[in-house]
Amino acid sequence: MDENKYDIVIVGGGASGVPAALRARRLYKDKSVLLITKERKAVIPCAIPYVPYSIESCDSALLPYDTLIKLGVSIVVDEVVDVDRKNKRVIVASGKTYGYDKLILAVGGRPSVPPIDGINLKNVVVVYKGYEKVVELQRAIREASKIVIVGGGFVGVELADDVVNLKKDVTIVEMLPHCLTLNFDEEFAIKAEEQLKQKGVKIITGRTIKRIYGKEGVEGVELDNGESLPANLVVVASGYRPSVELAKKIGLNVGSHGIIVDDYMRTSDPDILAIGDCAEKRHFLLGEPVPFLLASIACQEANIAVTNLYGARTVKRMKGWCGTFVTKVGDLVLGCAGVTESFAKRRNLAYVVGRSKVVNRHPTWLSGACEIELKLVFLKDGTLIGAQGASTCHEIAEIINALSIAIQNEMKIDEVIAMEFASHPKLTASPGANPIVVAALDAFTKL
Amino acid sequence: MDENKYDIVIVGGGASGVPAALRARRLYKDKSVLLITKERKAVIPCAIPYVPYSIESCDSALLPYDTLIKLGVSIVVDEVVDVDRKNKRVIVASGKTYGYDKLILAVGGRPSVPPIDGINLKNVVVVYKGYEKVVELQRAIREASKIVIVGGGFVGVELADDVVNLKKDVTIVEMLPHCLTLNFDEEFAIKAEEQLKQKGVKIITGRTIKRIYGKEGVEGVELDNGESLPANLVVVASGYRPSVELAKKIGLNVGSHGIIVDDYMRTSDPDILAIGDCAEKRHFLLGEPVPFLLASIACQEANIAVTNLYGARTVKRMKGWCGTFVTKVGDLVLGCAGVTESFAKRRNLAYVVGRSKVVNRHPTWLSGACEIELKLVFLKDGTLIGAQGASTCHEIAEIINALSIAIQNEMKIDEVIAMEFASHPKLTASPGANPIVVAALDAFTKL
Repeated sequence: MDENKYDIVIVGGGASGVPAALRARRLYKDKSVLLITKERKAVIPCAIPYVPYSIESCDSALLPYDTLIKLGVSIVVDEVVDVDRKNKRVIVASGKTYGYDKLILAVGGRPSVPPIDGINLKNVVVVYKGYEKVVELQRAIREASKIVIVGGGFVGVELADDVVNLKKDVTIVEMLPHCLTLNFDEEFAIKAEEQLKQKGVKIITGRTIKRIYGKEGVEGVELDNGESLPANLVVVASGYRPSVELAKKIGLNVGSHGIIVDDYMRTSDPDILAIGDCAEKRHFLLGEPVPFLLASIACQEANIAVTNLYGARTVKRMKGWCGTFVTKVGDLVLGCAGVTESFAKRRNLAYVVGRSKVVNRHPTWLSGACEIELKLVFLKDGTLIGAQGASTCHEIAEIINALSIAIQNEMKIDEVIAMEFASHPKLTASPGANPIVVAALDAFTKL
Repeated sequence: MDENKYDIVIVGGGASGVPAALRARRLYKDKSVLLITKERKAVIPCAIPYVPYSIESCDSALLPYDTLIKLGVSIVVDEVVDVDRKNKRVIVASGKTYGYDKLILAVGGRPSVPPIDGINLKNVVVVYKGYEKVVELQRAIREASKIVIVGGGFVGVELADDVVNLKKDVTIVEMLPHCLTLNFDEEFAIKAEEQLKQKGVKIITGRTIKRIYGKEGVEGVELDNGESLPANLVVVASGYRPSVELAKKIGLNVGSHGIIVDDYMRTSDPDILAIGDCAEKRHFLLGEPVPFLLASIACQEANIAVTNLYGARTVKRMKGWCGTFVTKVGDLVLGCAGVTESFAKRRNLAYVVGRSKVVNRHPTWLSGACEIELKLVFLKDGTLIGAQGASTCHEIAEIINALSIAIQNEMKIDEVIAMEFASHPKLTASPGANPIVVAALDAFTKL
């Protein structure tokens, strides 16, 4: 037997590769599993925006490679440069080859770096998930005093929220009219911006960066309106794109938003699967490819892929993903699932909106009470298609997850109005003020 | 026009009557609404167990009668003693009559009082939702030093949890082997009991009370094993039963667990509806009548009844109720939805169980981190039918509500494994450790 042959080879040690390896080990005790990863360590991807302040040392927020090894996963630190599909072997940069029965590509994505003049200056740092890059980001931020963050998406916003705790001068530059508008309608985006402003973050929206200037290192950025912002660090957080180069090179079908996969995460080669940021995702409602590069989806794709690897294919991918997402900005927790109202409007969907604003205790003066604000979007036929929420209480994250389940089940407004839930004085809003039901009742009157 | 004639007459000012009146006012601006209630005030029903300590004054935890009046609801304080269905008029104790177009019975329930010798002694207090009774309960508890609570259901447990904060000697006597076993499997019931014991509550299970003794007032109780417990107050919290006397008197169909209603909460007289504790509820899985006397269900029945009162009937009652319930005992939040394992076993259902124990932050050392424990019950065909959870974090309540939505949508185990959810370092478990998905994966291996 070939000593370099494994049953399952996983390429990539990030948010999809690691859970895939864990799951494979637990589900198929008699199968050998190899994980090939570019670095010896990886920071928990969602924790990266928090390394400036909340995470003291990057080594305290690592993906559990040690657990993988304990469970019997072999780990090779190298880069896969090619795949010999005919002979079912992967080839790594050092020249070695590893045979596979099933190959799982979990190669993630890479940052979209805007072609700005000066982008290669010293002290321009791109948010990138590699361990060394994250360590460098942490060090650079801690050493800087005036920081410009390029991009007001969730990474830029979370980063600004964390960095400002270090008493740095922080400015976000976002080209859209508001931060976070890929996930939220304006009124929620403004709430997040207000939190940041209260903490001292400056936010410039509707502007792009014309150039980054400086001699050796960064001295500042010039905006498209000619305005100059002095800075000794520029952090680029302007999104991620699927890594598809390897897949293209080996002849797999690749779409505009990643490697094309079926309902079981199989690529055009049925022995090669793709999961996580590198795999194409479809929109739950419109069916079109969507750039949902979220660790939660990556993990679920790992579950789906591995569960179906051998034996009956029993766990099918859902019809599509709805982009369920939660974050915390200042004291405010914001979450969303499905489409926003502005998306519905842009796509000419026939929709109605329902809103609620309730207090999560009853009587409302009990300790821990705070306001929960929800906005739901329903199609005119009553189908729930979108939810956004904001609150200073943490429960809103799980309320958004409940709404994500409701959207995935294509719940109708009458079912939402009639649904059963629990209430308790010390834990929830009063039973007559359940935030989901109140918002649905509001929408109902507009149908 | 008859000045005592209203479009909508609601009988009962509790957890279903009040939301019904609110909803009627908001939905039908041109309809007159009359609420007939036995008392001028009502304490928020779910808050009653917390009046001994957490609620300083009963008047600070009232149902919003003032809001009803502001919205234009007429309120009459009286008791309905009869209904002239032919002439569509209700008759109250004072002799007055009020005409209705639609009559909503929201008359609630009344305590089941066990026929114990000595039950009529001074300082035996029954937990009853009437305002004066709640005030009396609060006063009696504050004045007592040794208290025996009869019944370890959720009211008895919540009451004990609150009373013990007053440094009283508190003993629960429960006839079943554990407290809360109507809602929870033994391992969760034991967790709740441990919390109570840590706070100093004594718990005697598997025992009934043979007699309450004393000369004028209570001096103690004697258990069925002959043991005596000294006490100067006995609180009876041994359950509630639907109030069906009026319905029977006026010839409506009444079942073993309440007034029989259709999917739109209509009784056998289509102009008379019944909602809340007095109305029969069906089990989501088995279809049989169930004693789910919960304020959350009462509120939802109010929504369903009122939404369908006029015009198209658009909001149908769900197939059945699953008894979704959350509580807090000591530092622990416990919740359930659907059936327990012991119920599934007792009913000879073919089922599997899945469990998870995860931390709600990633990395797990972030502030606010605590353990979440879940137990899910699936039918052998994969349908999710039950969930129980425990955690010291409050989010577990909304996780249970999410599971309630999943159960109501008859989600299958493969859909649960593949479902989308949000994760965030400061708000949830890591995406690879979502408590619902982990428990479903555990069950999946046993199918």
